[in-house]
Amino acid sequence: MAPLLSLLHQAATRLARPHTLRAVRLCAARLSSSAPALNRAVVFSENGNPTQVLSVKSYEPLPPPPPGALNVRFRLSPINPSDINIVQGVYPAKPTRVTISGKELSVGGNEGLAEVVEVGDGVQGFEVGDWVISGKQQAGTWSTTRTLRADDTIKLPAQGLSEVNAATIAVNPATAFCMLHEFLDLKEGDWVLQNGDRLVGQAVIQIAARKGIKTINFVRTRHVIANDIDNLIASLTSLGANHVFTYESLEDRTLGKNIKQWTAGNPIRLMLNCVGGPTTLAMTRYLGENAHLVSYGAMSKQPLALPTSAFIFKNLQAHGHWQSRWYKEHSRQDREDLMDVLTALQLKEPEHEILDLSDEDNDGLATQKLRHALDRMERPYGRKILLRL
Amino acid sequence: MAPLLSLLHQAATRLARPHTLRAVRLCAARLSSSAPALNRAVVFSENGNPTQVLSVKSYEPLPPPPPGALNVRFRLSPINPSDINIVQGVYPAKPTRVTISGKELSVGGNEGLAEVVEVGDGVQGFEVGDWVISGKQQAGTWSTTRTLRADDTIKLPAQGLSEVNAATIAVNPATAFCMLHEFLDLKEGDWVLQNGDRLVGQAVIQIAARKGIKTINFVRTRHVIANDIDNLIASLTSLGANHVFTYESLEDRTLGKNIKQWTAGNPIRLMLNCVGGPTTLAMTRYLGENAHLVSYGAMSKQPLALPTSAFIFKNLQAHGHWQSRWYKEHSRQDREDLMDVLTALQLKEPEHEILDLSDEDNDGLATQKLRHALDRMERPYGRKILLRL
Repeated sequence: MAPLLSLLHQAATRLARPHTLRAVRLCAARLSSSAPALNRAVVFSENGNPTQVLSVKSYEPLPPPPPGALNVRFRLSPINPSDINIVQGVYPAKPTRVTISGKELSVGGNEGLAEVVEVGDGVQGFEVGDWVISGKQQAGTWSTTRTLRADDTIKLPAQGLSEVNAATIAVNPATAFCMLHEFLDLKEGDWVLQNGDRLVGQAVIQIAARKGIKTINFVRTRHVIANDIDNLIASLTSLGANHVFTYESLEDRTLGKNIKQWTAGNPIRLMLNCVGGPTTLAMTRYLGENAHLVSYGAMSKQPLALPTSAFIFKNLQAHGHWQSRWYKEHSRQDREDLMDVLTALQLKEPEHEILDLSDEDNDGLATQKLRHALDRMERPYGRKILLRL
Repeated sequence: MAPLLSLLHQAATRLARPHTLRAVRLCAARLSSSAPALNRAVVFSENGNPTQVLSVKSYEPLPPPPPGALNVRFRLSPINPSDINIVQGVYPAKPTRVTISGKELSVGGNEGLAEVVEVGDGVQGFEVGDWVISGKQQAGTWSTTRTLRADDTIKLPAQGLSEVNAATIAVNPATAFCMLHEFLDLKEGDWVLQNGDRLVGQAVIQIAARKGIKTINFVRTRHVIANDIDNLIASLTSLGANHVFTYESLEDRTLGKNIKQWTAGNPIRLMLNCVGGPTTLAMTRYLGENAHLVSYGAMSKQPLALPTSAFIFKNLQAHGHWQSRWYKEHSRQDREDLMDVLTALQLKEPEHEILDLSDEDNDGLATQKLRHALDRMERPYGRKILLRL
């Protein structure tokens, strides 16, 4: 987007002027579709270390979309941990395949904010300039342009979302929201246990807090992140966390008594888990009868090991949640309703940096810049990287 | 029951003549309630080894039942593993307490066939001579007589059940039936995995076979039960098991291929588990997407350790089943419907021996006889012992 348009867009977003915003977007979309497009994708031809196998490749402009489809231009696409796992070949999903200069390649990226630049025949409910995301997993969002089936595409609300929030709404906040709502009908004043301290966990804290649901949060052991632990605790607390502890507290015998006091003896019936192993087991001891343990990750790389007695005598139920499955099993209307609800919650933008490759014309140099950023990303507690191609 | 009545009762049961049966039962009930009653219970005053802490104690005849209650006389009461665990103090349920000769004692027994001998005011739907079981756990069924609340009592069908089947219907067959029906709507031709080879497992095999549901059964490793393994496999197969393997087969790489062939590639979506540990984990690999793992025991004494990925990506759900909870959460009508359905299935009587203490007048000698039988029961693969007091 031209700098002036970009400024106008920011202003319109801040002022929540939908008509101005739509006009600016439309203008930007036309400009970008009429400009000589530099189409690019981040691709790989074999699985491996992303800093070695990922490359930036230019490709020819897309043909007009076929009936029932949309051509979209991606504005901002996050690099999520699961995207990295797909490049490594250790995640149970297949990337999009494309042909560039006669060679078949995989395109990375599952999530990202796009805007509609061309609407195919027979498509209802989309206009040029609409902000959209893909409801189908592994859409190859690390591309400047793609053709998406309208039925697989989710329109975002016309106002209320920043570019960064829109680009990161589909996976983490959606996962947090669905886990808080699909297993149990939580009421104001109910309590939830969780061990997520990254983006899903942060969204859980915020969404719960907006509804008056209280969270007890366990974060990594103190020695892992040394001095950063106090910042982490402060940051989760500022998002609305009611209590934040390190795993060391799980060995503290007064914890159970404190939890009973805070909850006034009401059983805790939901626990959200992305860790596994002994600390997760220790957390389940604070669950009451008829509780649901919902797992969405396994950062400890250890299995979920639980005493059978908890299932039999406390009626614990263990489930998993995978947002990709949720999208697959829900209608376009359901998906758009979810986006409306998430937008209305006005979640805080995740800590991020934007990796802008659009000012680097040379594919080789752009690849170097990308790989350098990926190398940085491997360090723990880095910010989320959002790609602008 | 007098010998002649007993013979008549057996004949009426076999010929399925409900009116004759009811008349015989009524006659027997009157005889036994008018005879000088030898009331006895198997009691304990502290937790410990059952062969050391259980005693037979005589007590005074019951007063007439209060309004809304029934006096019942137990005919046959099984000694189940969980009863032993309660005596040991390692099971999460409390036994019934009674006062005998001024001393407060616990009475054992959760399951047993009783007949109604006296009906309290205001009780609907019960008559003297009805066969009943307790719908409330830990009713103290190791007694000749007890007073039960009518609302906690389940009437058995007037025909179709032998004494042994009636005395053992409430826990094992009920558990098997509920696990096969509460989590999934299985259709004829569907497959179930299970690792129970004792009474619940045997009931699962029979109930599944009656409905055309197929079972793949895993039983203990060959070295544990040496030469008996072939008998075990033959006996489960004769009950209707489609395939029976020892745990060694879980390491056989052809098993997966065979299962795919048998199931024609249809995903297996129910697994019933009473073992836990590595063999249970190995079995879950043969489950398809959206499967339910239902645990009702932990004979390996190892936790249920499963990869989190199975929950997230295959949408595995893990539950427990406790028949006591089922009874607690269901109405008297539901409970009686369950008994009707189970009766109609005409399950095979479990292998058993009846420990008849009624011919031993002396409490001390009856206690010796009981402890001797309990000692025998500790050996693996013993028959179920049914108490007749």
